[in-house]
Amino acid sequence: MVTERRIHLASKRAAVSYAPDPDTGELRPWLAPGGTGNVVAEQAGVLDVSWIASADTEDDRRAARENPEGLSLSLGSGRRIRVKLLHHDRHTFDVVQNFFTAELLWAANNHGWDAWTTPTFDREAYRAMDCFGEFTGDFADALLKSSADAADPVYLVHDYQLIGVPQRLRAQRPQAPVLMFVHIPWPSPDFWRVLPKPIRVGLLEGMLPATTVGFFADRWCRNFLDCVSDLLPDAEVDRERGTVRRHGAVTRVRALPLGYSPLTIAGRAHRLPEGIAAWAGEGPLVVHSGRTDPIKNAERAVRAFVLAVRSDHRLRGARMLVRMNPNRLYVRANAEYVRRVRAAVAEANAELGADSVRWHCDNEVEHTLGCFARADLLVFNSTVDGQNLSAFEAPLVNGRDAEVVLSETCGAAELLGPVCRTVNPFDLVEQAEAIAGALTAPAAQRAEAARRRRAAAEPWTLEAWVRSQLDAVEADHRVRRG
Amino acid sequence: MVTERRIHLASKRAAVSYAPDPDTGELRPWLAPGGTGNVVAEQAGVLDVSWIASADTEDDRRAARENPEGLSLSLGSGRRIRVKLLHHDRHTFDVVQNFFTAELLWAANNHGWDAWTTPTFDREAYRAMDCFGEFTGDFADALLKSSADAADPVYLVHDYQLIGVPQRLRAQRPQAPVLMFVHIPWPSPDFWRVLPKPIRVGLLEGMLPATTVGFFADRWCRNFLDCVSDLLPDAEVDRERGTVRRHGAVTRVRALPLGYSPLTIAGRAHRLPEGIAAWAGEGPLVVHSGRTDPIKNAERAVRAFVLAVRSDHRLRGARMLVRMNPNRLYVRANAEYVRRVRAAVAEANAELGADSVRWHCDNEVEHTLGCFARADLLVFNSTVDGQNLSAFEAPLVNGRDAEVVLSETCGAAELLGPVCRTVNPFDLVEQAEAIAGALTAPAAQRAEAARRRRAAAEPWTLEAWVRSQLDAVEADHRVRRG
Repeated sequence: MVTERRIHLASKRAAVSYAPDPDTGELRPWLAPGGTGNVVAEQAGVLDVSWIASADTEDDRRAARENPEGLSLSLGSGRRIRVKLLHHDRHTFDVVQNFFTAELLWAANNHGWDAWTTPTFDREAYRAMDCFGEFTGDFADALLKSSADAADPVYLVHDYQLIGVPQRLRAQRPQAPVLMFVHIPWPSPDFWRVLPKPIRVGLLEGMLPATTVGFFADRWCRNFLDCVSDLLPDAEVDRERGTVRRHGAVTRVRALPLGYSPLTIAGRAHRLPEGIAAWAGEGPLVVHSGRTDPIKNAERAVRAFVLAVRSDHRLRGARMLVRMNPNRLYVRANAEYVRRVRAAVAEANAELGADSVRWHCDNEVEHTLGCFARADLLVFNSTVDGQNLSAFEAPLVNGRDAEVVLSETCGAAELLGPVCRTVNPFDLVEQAEAIAGALTAPAAQRAEAARRRRAAAEPWTLEAWVRSQLDAVEADHRVRRG
Repeated sequence: MVTERRIHLASKRAAVSYAPDPDTGELRPWLAPGGTGNVVAEQAGVLDVSWIASADTEDDRRAARENPEGLSLSLGSGRRIRVKLLHHDRHTFDVVQNFFTAELLWAANNHGWDAWTTPTFDREAYRAMDCFGEFTGDFADALLKSSADAADPVYLVHDYQLIGVPQRLRAQRPQAPVLMFVHIPWPSPDFWRVLPKPIRVGLLEGMLPATTVGFFADRWCRNFLDCVSDLLPDAEVDRERGTVRRHGAVTRVRALPLGYSPLTIAGRAHRLPEGIAAWAGEGPLVVHSGRTDPIKNAERAVRAFVLAVRSDHRLRGARMLVRMNPNRLYVRANAEYVRRVRAAVAEANAELGADSVRWHCDNEVEHTLGCFARADLLVFNSTVDGQNLSAFEAPLVNGRDAEVVLSETCGAAELLGPVCRTVNPFDLVEQAEAIAGALTAPAAQRAEAARRRRAAAEPWTLEAWVRSQLDAVEADHRVRRG
């Protein structure tokens, strides 16, 4: 049984960073809000294992040096976890974090290039791939070291920043179960091929030694299998079974959906940002929520809202709140996105009347949950999204039978599409019709839809997801060399 | 036998346009250089059938009115053809030509959007789809009228502007063989889904009533099948066999490659543009050739050339000519492409020395062939390309054992990849290495490679392609209702 083995968990992003306590001056851990790091942290709590992540800031690095065996901390859910922060070479880490993952892989996996004017790769991309190899090696070394005494370790490797790790683990641990889970979308081969050959092939070769490759949705599994089929001539892909046979071993590719963490939702207060309650009053409120990343697509959501109000007089007086969490604003695409969103909000107010649309940006999870609770309509119209956990969390938090407009290219649409108003995220006409339809739906219909939506979201707990990972890697381990 | 049936051929683009003869003032036909229109025109000559195309200019429209039964003209190959020009509603035609096909479908099929900032669809896209329906109806009506007396007509419908036509033909001619041939790439579902639902679904539904759907390359066939599988739940796709079963009938999807027209190559003079012979001397000359369209990727070719010369001292003194054919410069993406190419040429000359790189732009086929003949290295590095006929033509015209750098995402790479230096069109490092390797290859090796390349290109004649279309539609017709 895999679960009787020692589990070794790694992801680049920690849900925690270290900074001095203002009172004592001593370094202490601070929890970051939301995101991938958070669900991996919760997972560490569920499994009761220590977790290896990258030290990011100078204070993180100091904490790592001062606590080589790791630190323990409490999560918002009440769970306690142990974290070991890895100290990478500073230059290597900066290249990997700021260029290789945040720009290059982020754009490749989220369709961020137009091909006609971007991207162009020169030697910088090749050097960054070398840095990525070193960074990958740091993680593999730490995982191998922490499992050196274990007879039967199992490795859970999380998210796209670590896709080189399975190959390194396999070289030293030929018999170990290894799960590689990618939290973001996987693109079709025409997109993935855009990367230079050593990168696009090297990264697939880094992943395939895993026992199981997991994504949130079937669409990403299919794309991944098509990439392998297109780029690795020595791999035998079975699309129906979701398997890749290569070098005498079988890798299984699986969709393992996650929705939300019940303890996290239960453990957090809900609070509207200041002034929002009075501004919104009891009138209909549309909420768009997401971090400051162009995939979250708030600009088109605002423009669709304007089109909806312009087209349907019953919507006069409706208001819209664009709720953002600040994220990587040093990435140019993100900074430009915020500018475009603010311009769209200004244009909307020029047309609909001052203060019809507001935007609000901070990192308070309570504010996000407060907005989820108050909304009469929730809009998650990502251009593309690995899953979009908010689409699960918000309907469970909301108390006003809010309808949900959901992009069809969120992973979440595979489970929640039938109970949401799904839209093409590029089509303002369809989004405006969905917004108008939602805001004018009869109360009884809204209540019934909300009930069905909650029922569809509820099973997809963090605990079930962790269980599904362990079950998958155990089952796939048994047939790996079949 | 299909070939004993009356064949009815249509494509939007004519290889001919009408304008007054400067001597007599009478309207006469003028041949346009290169492009899809030309190979369809040659096809009309091979089949000895009349051909239905769109009237474009005011003079075309006048010619259409004055010659309702069509006009006959001689092609550069020496073949005579009959053309019937369709008179569309002016507004409808302008919307279809300038927006729906040249911007919207061109970007969708050639990866021209970044998703984060473009595209955004509003009611204009929906109205354009209505215009496209009218335009499609004009063609279907003309084909049905011209075949009204035929007991067993066969329809050959060419290129992406006419993808709505098969459905209209099928409604009136349930038993007729219909070939729908698309000359441009077909994108994967993640890209095709970007279009509004009524467009992305409506266009697939427009094509599937064809007996045979043809592309130049297997990659486009696979993408098309994946789009159908993703978007039409009532279609049964067999990827291995290349078939779609829907509404009780089977559509076969096939790659039918075309390379070049032997008579066209033989019938044209070769001539270098003025000043090029003296400028190039006997030194090594790199030639990039393509129309003014961002997919042709001359900007990155120039930058790769600079990187190659910078990295390998043996390349000092090599020169590069960017040869362009003016194409749709009223399309903003094309005008911006020309500006980027000119800027890259200026930067190259600033680094390598004045006049190391030149660009030349006109519509003389003799000039293009002259550049093909003189080149020591030919670069066809399209970001994506349905086929790229130049990759076949140029090695057959060239007399200096020129090596060929070929983008792996040209359709042509499926046949010519093994005898060219294939590259990722976004990767300057790989392209620079290919350029340096090609220019420094030993003469004997170059001669042998050129011989093998010509042998690989030679079989793919226009005549063989026309034959393959008729054979395909005949075979597929027999099993359509099986």
